[in-house]
Amino acid sequence: MASKKPLILISNDDGITAPGIRTLVKVMKRIGEVVVVAPNGPQSGMGHAITVGNTLRLDKSTAFTDVEAYECSGTPADCVKLAKHHVLKDRQPDLVVSGINHGSNSSISVLYSGTMSAAIEAAIEGLPAIGFSLCDYGHEADFSHTEPYVEQIVRQALAHGVPVNTALNVNIPKNSTKPIAGIKVCRQAHARWQEEFDERMDPNNRRYFWMTGNFVNPDKGEDTDEWALAHNYISVVPCQYDLTAYHTIAQINNEWQLEGEPIPTEKAPD
Amino acid sequence: MASKKPLILISNDDGITAPGIRTLVKVMKRIGEVVVVAPNGPQSGMGHAITVGNTLRLDKSTAFTDVEAYECSGTPADCVKLAKHHVLKDRQPDLVVSGINHGSNSSISVLYSGTMSAAIEAAIEGLPAIGFSLCDYGHEADFSHTEPYVEQIVRQALAHGVPVNTALNVNIPKNSTKPIAGIKVCRQAHARWQEEFDERMDPNNRRYFWMTGNFVNPDKGEDTDEWALAHNYISVVPCQYDLTAYHTIAQINNEWQLEGEPIPTEKAPD
Repeated sequence: MASKKPLILISNDDGITAPGIRTLVKVMKRIGEVVVVAPNGPQSGMGHAITVGNTLRLDKSTAFTDVEAYECSGTPADCVKLAKHHVLKDRQPDLVVSGINHGSNSSISVLYSGTMSAAIEAAIEGLPAIGFSLCDYGHEADFSHTEPYVEQIVRQALAHGVPVNTALNVNIPKNSTKPIAGIKVCRQAHARWQEEFDERMDPNNRRYFWMTGNFVNPDKGEDTDEWALAHNYISVVPCQYDLTAYHTIAQINNEWQLEGEPIPTEKAPD
Repeated sequence: MASKKPLILISNDDGITAPGIRTLVKVMKRIGEVVVVAPNGPQSGMGHAITVGNTLRLDKSTAFTDVEAYECSGTPADCVKLAKHHVLKDRQPDLVVSGINHGSNSSISVLYSGTMSAAIEAAIEGLPAIGFSLCDYGHEADFSHTEPYVEQIVRQALAHGVPVNTALNVNIPKNSTKPIAGIKVCRQAHARWQEEFDERMDPNNRRYFWMTGNFVNPDKGEDTDEWALAHNYISVVPCQYDLTAYHTIAQINNEWQLEGEPIPTEKAPD
């Protein structure tokens, strides 16, 4: 008797018709039984948003051949919640994969990423999870070179497990003549986006803004995801959802005056 | 010559007309010069979402007396970015405060919280930041008892600084006959929301869902924010935006096979 195929849940943030999720479904079908629950439109930059105070739609999708698929009106985190508690119910997925995102989610971008929020939501639910992103924003981005690496990483995750309470943030260099140097487990580079706001006037002479920005990375550590990607490695960062900065608790307790009654309020006009 | 008053930037996720931000503005006016940049409507549950592929509005607001205030069409994280790079520009805030949120943001809720995403966005920008939340979802929630504690915490932050690369997540018990027990620096409890989906039919006989859920906390640690709040303490959790699970990097490197060429692909029909 053949061993049971693993059950793999797929989501993303670019929406169910995006090219990256097609690549992910194609590769995952080689490995296991696939169920897709993905947004019905783009949800980029949604971070860990969930739908509060509003309703959700969930409809069967025919986006993929021979795959049970659903499209959802909500965010990537909503998709994973609906998948686990409504679509799959008693079917426990062996792995949750998200992506392949059309653009990088390395370094600080992990916080803004809907792709990674789907993976992190799965980790919160106790499920092994990986988010995949391709470092290529081009309209004609080629996802084909990612296939063997995505397959390798997923097979390793199924064989050895993803560390508990974490989700892996995998970023893959864009396709080029330069071969992929390998796969490197990294830490998140300490970098950020430096925003600029492009101020314009609408046809009614009302002001509006486009947010633009440059990625600024002063962190030159060779153990960072940015170093790995700059040297054509695939970066793998294990991400946790416990945000506690444990090393600062003693500092606050030592320096701050928090005991006793609050300091009397200086009265001032409200 | 009097010393210069600190510049305090205020945002939130309940929107610029919410009662919690009125309390925060009132208390901050006793301490410093205040600038408000807050969403023009509710942005609860928006996590660390930013506005991508769409435009932003920013308009002067008259919501507060004698306070420079702006309302923004974007998310809490957008508000902080616009405040720093457009509204304040060369004026460097001494502190960024967010809230007071109408409802708890303890434990795992920090990930979904727009209130905390404003504070964390400020921390990413290198600014000391605190998010305040009141553990009371009631329509008539009373914020008045929070005032002396908010003032004490803010004065301590201005005097001693917030640890670098962190933002503080402060949750305050609801007003009751029981006095506040004190202020406790804590870790994030390892808890989660257990979702349920309430399935209904719309007037056109199409299915929709309301997400509901229960908070499940198996983590009984007395060093957690949930323990503190359950014992009527104000909880203070320092939160970092470096998500790297450092302790798992060696585990993955030891157990996973990631070197060499990818394992040959098992061909299967797409």
